[in-house]
Amino acid sequence: MNVKEMAKRAKEVSYKLTDISTEIKNRTLKKAAELLRERKELIEKENQKDLIAGEEKGLSKAMLDRLLLNEKRINGMIQVLNDVASLNDPVGEIIKMWKRPNGIKIGKMRVPLGVVGIIYESRPNVTVEAASLCIKSSNAVILKGGSEAINSNRILVNILKEAATSEGFPEEAIQFIDTTERLAVKEMLQLDEYIDVIIPRGGEGLIRFVAENARMPVIKHYKGVCHVFVDEFADLEKAWNICFNAKVQRPGVCNAMETMLVHSNISDAFMPTMIEMFKKAKVELRGCERALQYDPKYIKPATEDDWYAEYLDLILAVKIVDSLDEAIDHINTYGSHHSDAIVTENYTNGMKFLNRVDSAAVYINASTRFTDGNVFGLGAEMGISTDKIHVRGPMGLEDLTIPKYIIFGDGQIRE
Amino acid sequence: MNVKEMAKRAKEVSYKLTDISTEIKNRTLKKAAELLRERKELIEKENQKDLIAGEEKGLSKAMLDRLLLNEKRINGMIQVLNDVASLNDPVGEIIKMWKRPNGIKIGKMRVPLGVVGIIYESRPNVTVEAASLCIKSSNAVILKGGSEAINSNRILVNILKEAATSEGFPEEAIQFIDTTERLAVKEMLQLDEYIDVIIPRGGEGLIRFVAENARMPVIKHYKGVCHVFVDEFADLEKAWNICFNAKVQRPGVCNAMETMLVHSNISDAFMPTMIEMFKKAKVELRGCERALQYDPKYIKPATEDDWYAEYLDLILAVKIVDSLDEAIDHINTYGSHHSDAIVTENYTNGMKFLNRVDSAAVYINASTRFTDGNVFGLGAEMGISTDKIHVRGPMGLEDLTIPKYIIFGDGQIRE
Repeated sequence: MNVKEMAKRAKEVSYKLTDISTEIKNRTLKKAAELLRERKELIEKENQKDLIAGEEKGLSKAMLDRLLLNEKRINGMIQVLNDVASLNDPVGEIIKMWKRPNGIKIGKMRVPLGVVGIIYESRPNVTVEAASLCIKSSNAVILKGGSEAINSNRILVNILKEAATSEGFPEEAIQFIDTTERLAVKEMLQLDEYIDVIIPRGGEGLIRFVAENARMPVIKHYKGVCHVFVDEFADLEKAWNICFNAKVQRPGVCNAMETMLVHSNISDAFMPTMIEMFKKAKVELRGCERALQYDPKYIKPATEDDWYAEYLDLILAVKIVDSLDEAIDHINTYGSHHSDAIVTENYTNGMKFLNRVDSAAVYINASTRFTDGNVFGLGAEMGISTDKIHVRGPMGLEDLTIPKYIIFGDGQIRE
Repeated sequence: MNVKEMAKRAKEVSYKLTDISTEIKNRTLKKAAELLRERKELIEKENQKDLIAGEEKGLSKAMLDRLLLNEKRINGMIQVLNDVASLNDPVGEIIKMWKRPNGIKIGKMRVPLGVVGIIYESRPNVTVEAASLCIKSSNAVILKGGSEAINSNRILVNILKEAATSEGFPEEAIQFIDTTERLAVKEMLQLDEYIDVIIPRGGEGLIRFVAENARMPVIKHYKGVCHVFVDEFADLEKAWNICFNAKVQRPGVCNAMETMLVHSNISDAFMPTMIEMFKKAKVELRGCERALQYDPKYIKPATEDDWYAEYLDLILAVKIVDSLDEAIDHINTYGSHHSDAIVTENYTNGMKFLNRVDSAAVYINASTRFTDGNVFGLGAEMGISTDKIHVRGPMGLEDLTIPKYIIFGDGQIRE
């Protein structure tokens, strides 16, 4: 079956999915979890094929690690399926209702987006995360994974399909583009008649390609150049802990701090201890001219490029600023509008930062590392949107729906 | 100044707009309303230039009518400005807030989209509608109107700018691409670095061009192929009135009915009177084979194309169907997912229609003509979205904002 035909069928069945009850959706998710548990060995066997092919192709160690499905990761997928089953069903929720002078009642009711296309790279667990959220939100889903994970993705999709059809889902509700050809992606991006939204998950190259070629709306997840600003009124203990955590706890993720901004009125008190902490954790520091002065031997000079950099590594850019405004301007100019924090005991400065920093998640006195669907309490996430429409930040189950207007009348006509 | 430079400056000032209080925004809108009132003659004089040029270019009567600004239409714009001033300010509204086990408090706060680009045709009143909604929602706006309305748009923008700057808005908050060159549109659509969202308002050709060329998100307003389904359990009086109103009250707009579906169990009772009503109103009827039988002389045979047609005229396609499911399938297949209604006294059929019809506005026992921001009680509207993400249906002030996450901590770090 070609991609167009698949998309067309997905669209056709998508209209029927709202008929499937929450109970059946939950049973499907739990059934898939059971099947994953039963077939662990089979999954690892298929995954081995991808790993061997990957090694032969000379994939990097990091790539091979992302590809790997071991028992712990399979258990993680089982957990996701059970977690999504336990989330509230957003479909049919009426978020607002009001009456107009002529007596009609108007409401906004959450409905599925329709057909969701997911284009992703390497990590096969995305197959389970994305499909489970689509099952629960009554969306049809078309999955296009990376060629390097084709065998792993295929078996996971087969398990999900088996669970879904055994509970009465139409077979076309979950579709998998079972090819390693890149052309299939291009074809998919033209099918705006059938696919309502595309969510790319992967590196910046993939996301740009999708955004530039898609004819349907795309929800993007670009990089995270996150900041912590240590205000002149910061509590030093909190500042040291938050900055250290935001940089060091897991440097390879999008919500880790990449640039630290320090107010010049507090930098003498703050910097020496902070530098010692980073030194011990082997964090490379790249400072502006004033930051350099605190340890000219250890800190390297930062270039303009450093302010834009997403290191995803134990490297940190450091800048001394003279005002809250300068910090806010720096973040809005060089940042990626992902997650940014201020450390301050001053109420007015905190609120100003909250209002003026144009990012998906803005923090007062907490680590940027909290930006995550699960940690925020939304359950599993489809990604973290850096777009400005539909959803900003962690994209949860609710964000796979959209309110439509429902109107209850009694024969009203327009005069 | 070139388009890129304009967009860049709009982006820069956009970050400051949340500092402007609701009171100042409202004063600005009322000031603009006053200036419009004072300068009616000047506006009409500038509009005359466009009308004369339009006549020379041989624009159609309908086009010239859309271009016209007479006293009534200027009063309409004044009304819009005052109405928008009286709406609640959505910026800063916290729509939800919750606490996590570690004590952080997470909220979702409405913020402006940033820089909104509006690309529109002919009707110069869009200038005032779009700009007033952007002023109130603290968005910077870049307006690109049609070349045929350049003089009218220019004076309206100048008045809006004068009002805004006199109240302290930065000049770059409202920008007007003062050229009749089409190239400017293409240039604008490349500037995803500075423009956060594009809203095209005009014919299908313009919207398709924008959707296919824009690198930033686009909120689209395609056509309205709206249906009324007369269920077998319809109240006949309500059905006649609603169908007549939906077709005849204003046939040239997107929420008018284009296809009427009638259940075969009620068609003998319903059709004769309905046909007489439409005859008197000179509505051309195009029927399926079974519909034809009710008046073979008057009703013309419908072709497959008629089920897809947006006539925007006193023409109606009519189809007899044998079940609610057939009606729903027809609407989801041939419709444009805009506004569709069922007339029924049967609770279960009404609710099934409401859930299963995939349209921005779904009605029980009311005319589709109500789909309109003002009529729904949202105030002025930016258009009616036929997209499936961000907003479906009338796009009001609130839809020019997006919630961002705000997090209040007390030193929390991620373990």
